[in-house]
Amino acid sequence: MNIPNNKSKSLVETTTQGIIDYITERKMEPGDKLPTETEFLEIFEVSRGTLREAFKILVARNVLEIRQGSGTFISPNKGIPDDPLGLTFIYDDHTLALDLLDVRLMLEPKIAQLAAINATDEQKERMEVLTQRLTECINNGTSYADVDTEFHQLVAEASGNRVLSNISYILISSIQKNIAITLDVQKISNTLHYHTRILNDIINADAVGAFYDMTMHLNLLREFMVNKLHEKQNSSK
Amino acid sequence: MNIPNNKSKSLVETTTQGIIDYITERKMEPGDKLPTETEFLEIFEVSRGTLREAFKILVARNVLEIRQGSGTFISPNKGIPDDPLGLTFIYDDHTLALDLLDVRLMLEPKIAQLAAINATDEQKERMEVLTQRLTECINNGTSYADVDTEFHQLVAEASGNRVLSNISYILISSIQKNIAITLDVQKISNTLHYHTRILNDIINADAVGAFYDMTMHLNLLREFMVNKLHEKQNSSK
Repeated sequence: MNIPNNKSKSLVETTTQGIIDYITERKMEPGDKLPTETEFLEIFEVSRGTLREAFKILVARNVLEIRQGSGTFISPNKGIPDDPLGLTFIYDDHTLALDLLDVRLMLEPKIAQLAAINATDEQKERMEVLTQRLTECINNGTSYADVDTEFHQLVAEASGNRVLSNISYILISSIQKNIAITLDVQKISNTLHYHTRILNDIINADAVGAFYDMTMHLNLLREFMVNKLHEKQNSSK
Repeated sequence: MNIPNNKSKSLVETTTQGIIDYITERKMEPGDKLPTETEFLEIFEVSRGTLREAFKILVARNVLEIRQGSGTFISPNKGIPDDPLGLTFIYDDHTLALDLLDVRLMLEPKIAQLAAINATDEQKERMEVLTQRLTECINNGTSYADVDTEFHQLVAEASGNRVLSNISYILISSIQKNIAITLDVQKISNTLHYHTRILNDIINADAVGAFYDMTMHLNLLREFMVNKLHEKQNSSK
């Protein structure tokens, strides 16, 4: 393998950083449109090939998104890459689902507590809509995994701590992409009951209630998951 | 911007996933060497250009590392990308340091508790070495930021929860890259005192002690940081 050589790599890296600086100096937000290739070539004074390499790296990092025929935009993924935890490369995944849930148990009760203090009216309304949609999914017997994770993500956003919000996004999307076991766990655990309680806690600004209801919700999930793991271990003996 | 067209993009994506599957099926580890370009061309039956695009994406995602003259290897960063939290694109960074520390306060006391239960003898010895090096840095008046973060990262590894270990890596490296304020905070807080206490807790398998000593260590940092933020807010009035 002899691509790329050090000199051109370093020029690509400088250009990549230059584009990042361009974005952050202007405080551009997801969906904002970037200048054209020709305009960037004037700014950076590099070759078209170098600029395109830089764009490709930023697309791979989910910073930019190229829409055919319309141009280059800030990605809705806000620079949070796919599989940010590198879970693809943790090979023994029998207990990975439990490791992930244990981390959620460390964070989400406190997240719910903060959301009860900091949620805006608009966020509370969106939580109500999601709880209503959850009810409909369960009544109709359709999959509610998306509505479920969207609710947890919204609670994290409502915490007001932006690092928590991004970490939750990472944990929740990692679960969806990497863990099959949680999907059937979620069908059985008492999701609707606890989502409704957490919603009411947050609406009533009951921070203690939100803490303990989220604790219960995730602990029931954990209990179910541990039982499943034991069944699997016993059946493989 | 008219690169790349949909068809070639999808072929590059398929090849990228093919390389990931090749790595995970063989459970390859950081530092392992990949086949040559020629060997991969026989496996995937794509053009050299497509294969190189796929390699570039995996290098940008910190999955692969190209060492000039020696070949392509699994990256030591284990597929955890640079700035996985997308902090580069959170613009108001006055309170970002506090948001990050609040998340550390939710996780690290429990991480220390788990480390007191699960740390191996080898990990305990490495913690002793790091505490010794911290003492030397402080005696010599040299920067100890690296030794400090390495100690916290090692405690997270010793927790035995791989998701926690990776999240800690993300939080700690985000701090180093994004937050200037913590560097002078760390110089003043009582780092050596609490690292030594946490080390002894873990050696003595004192899970409760480890929990509270980590809580104290990070709370003193938080107290200092909040005071700094208030000073800054007052001086800008």
